[in-house]
Amino acid sequence: MNGRMPSRRPGLPSFSIAARRLSGVGRRFYARGWMLGTSGNLSAVVRRDPMRLAITESAVPKGELTSKHILEVDEQGRAVRKKSGRPSAETLLHCVIARQRGAGAILHTHSVWSTILSDVHAATGHLVIKGYEMEKGFAGVRTHDHREVVPILENDQDMTRLAARVTDVLSTYPEAHAFLLRRHGLYTWGDTLEDAERHVEIAEFLFEVIGRTREE
Amino acid sequence: MNGRMPSRRPGLPSFSIAARRLSGVGRRFYARGWMLGTSGNLSAVVRRDPMRLAITESAVPKGELTSKHILEVDEQGRAVRKKSGRPSAETLLHCVIARQRGAGAILHTHSVWSTILSDVHAATGHLVIKGYEMEKGFAGVRTHDHREVVPILENDQDMTRLAARVTDVLSTYPEAHAFLLRRHGLYTWGDTLEDAERHVEIAEFLFEVIGRTREE
Amino acid sequence: MNGRMPSRRPGLPSFSIAARRLSGVGRRFYARGWMLGTSGNLSAVVRRDPMRLAITESAVPKGELTSKHILEVDEQGRAVRKKSGRPSAETLLHCVIARQRGAGAILHTHSVWSTILSDVHAATGHLVIKGYEMEKGFAGVRTHDHREVVPILENDQDMTRLAARVTDVLSTYPEAHAFLLRRHGLYTWGDTLEDAERHVEIAEFLFEVIGRTREE
Amino acid sequence: MNGRMPSRRPGLPSFSIAARRLSGVGRRFYARGWMLGTSGNLSAVVRRDPMRLAITESAVPKGELTSKHILEVDEQGRAVRKKSGRPSAETLLHCVIARQRGAGAILHTHSVWSTILSDVHAATGHLVIKGYEMEKGFAGVRTHDHREVVPILENDQDMTRLAARVTDVLSTYPEAHAFLLRRHGLYTWGDTLEDAERHVEIAEFLFEVIGRTREE
Repeated sequence: MNGRMPSRRPGLPSFSIAARRLSGVGRRFYARGWMLGTSGNLSAVVRRDPMRLAITESAVPKGELTSKHILEVDEQGRAVRKKSGRPSAETLLHCVIARQRGAGAILHTHSVWSTILSDVHAATGHLVIKGYEMEKGFAGVRTHDHREVVPILENDQDMTRLAARVTDVLSTYPEAHAFLLRRHGLYTWGDTLEDAERHVEIAEFLFEVIGRTREE
Repeated sequence: MNGRMPSRRPGLPSFSIAARRLSGVGRRFYARGWMLGTSGNLSAVVRRDPMRLAITESAVPKGELTSKHILEVDEQGRAVRKKSGRPSAETLLHCVIARQRGAGAILHTHSVWSTILSDVHAATGHLVIKGYEMEKGFAGVRTHDHREVVPILENDQDMTRLAARVTDVLSTYPEAHAFLLRRHGLYTWGDTLEDAERHVEIAEFLFEVIGRTREE
Repeated sequence: MNGRMPSRRPGLPSFSIAARRLSGVGRRFYARGWMLGTSGNLSAVVRRDPMRLAITESAVPKGELTSKHILEVDEQGRAVRKKSGRPSAETLLHCVIARQRGAGAILHTHSVWSTILSDVHAATGHLVIKGYEMEKGFAGVRTHDHREVVPILENDQDMTRLAARVTDVLSTYPEAHAFLLRRHGLYTWGDTLEDAERHVEIAEFLFEVIGRTREE
Repeated sequence: MNGRMPSRRPGLPSFSIAARRLSGVGRRFYARGWMLGTSGNLSAVVRRDPMRLAITESAVPKGELTSKHILEVDEQGRAVRKKSGRPSAETLLHCVIARQRGAGAILHTHSVWSTILSDVHAATGHLVIKGYEMEKGFAGVRTHDHREVVPILENDQDMTRLAARVTDVLSTYPEAHAFLLRRHGLYTWGDTLEDAERHVEIAEFLFEVIGRTREE
């Protein structure tokens, strides 16, 4: 064993455990309609220094996701093991979030309500969620009397440019648990995959409440 | 065996049976989107004198709920068996309802429609459900020509204070089968866990009907 | 064997086959939210002369419906085998429909959209469905250029009186494949259980289309 | 073996594999409510010259679809193997699309939102989908900055006449990935069955986004 062996922080899952658990998350989100048509990407940090992520490969239907559709990438989002699949272009955003937030897992989903709200609230640049008990599901929030600001970024196919804007937004909104890409979807994260999955469920629930309340 | 041995009323389930059945309820409600993101709490009375409740521990994802996530608590909501998990702060409300209504099971869920209606009708302090066949699903209701009043309480993180207000509301509305916490969720109960589960389904159905009818 | 032995028409299922298939229908409809909270009743004719129906017993949760929750009743809706359960009061309506339409199966469900539309259109006494391809799913309809009239009856807890009104409505609307009870739910039927299940799916689909179109 | 033996292009599935995979698609779409009441048809090309399609037989409930409900038809839509079932009248449209687009699979579904939007936008003759990330799920689309035009045809029971109009529409809209039949449903296709299934999911997602956005 030499000194270049990447260190694995206690508490980080092995690649194979992360791959199995990410697959389960993918199948559950697909069932709820949040990852239809191969959309979305799911990742978990498996090493920190240097950083390695387990992440869904590009263009895989999430309803049949298994460990074999999970790749290992480095901190630039490049595959580090030989496999047939390739990482999604959006892998770079996962890397930015993992580094900047110290997140253990990053989940990106496409739901009907996140797509709608990201558009309706685009002009103000963010969506405010305020006064709901469910906000206590966001890590560190202890009361419903909380004002969660979800920044909204314009969508972009240039991932380098978008990654730079994500970096800015994460700095500007240090308290944010999530952000939206306009007419695109949700990014959220957590210390663990369980935390990140809970954040998706919390965010989607609140988006639906807000979206349906607008109708009245 | 001494005289202090808690008496178990005929008809009350054992802790292990209650734990297994509560887990099933949790998984079903999670599937319907009524307990997303670890939200909600489910309990069943397993002894009466002194009272003991089987109740879901805090912060557990309900989609994977099993018996091992169920705690036994006393009438003050304190865990009475050594387990790793801790009871939710809202356990106290379950205890109040179990005592005051003589309920055998208490279920607390977070749904999109209960959250919306608890807010829209907050000004009047209650939601009225009137004239629906489905109301016959509430225990003791024999006709659709029934006026169910669902009190709405302001949400509060101080559980002692909220428990006192729940006590008041249960006294003020002796006929109520359920109440709402504003922008928070539903509490309902029943003589048995089956009754309480039916009450959740009935209440959620009627909330959705009323919520969607408002749209027109 | 004596001459009073009930004749079983070719094509009618045995009681045990009907019971098993009705259970499957119940579980599927429960999953879709059309039979929540023990609501609704499902029946299939198993003999014609004298008539016998296999029908769900009263107050059973449909998500766990099995053959043991199915009773056999005569043409007045009285149980003809000793079992612990009792027939629903609405059994009488099933008998009327079986006789008057010669139906092989009668299904009664409670859905959100049927409840809403039965109320919104109550003043006109019926709901008109017109010009949808899906109407071809109703038995005998060959084109989307069809006008399906779904009569709406006021709800009533007096089953004898309601049965008489159902008799009238079936006579007045000889072409109808279904009727609605106001703020209550849907009755539909078919030559076979498969036909009747298809009619529920078709009707519910069209109710949702019409209900959501109104929102615009 | 004689020279008339149909040639099977590399990459085309065998009939039995196509039949099994089409059954899986049918059960999934039924679960989502896109093929209720025996509605819709699913096909995959299994030979090119002469063309043969594996296609769902008429009037089968899709929730229990198995390989035995899949027929093999020729390019005029006539069954080429003796089986009890018969091809749907709409088989002809599948043949037109397979030929004209060179598609490997054609899927026809009936959803609530496609039915509503096909009616609401009928006057303009098409539905425009523009600026959504999800559009990248349509084959060949590389950016959200894409304008997908979904032609809408009036519904017709005369399949020969409708097939001719579909031929025209496919010529007029060479870029289209799908079309709608008014108050009827969606047709989409793809090089493979996987592509076509993804197109259904993408289209349905976008229809729901657009349909719900209109409500505001």
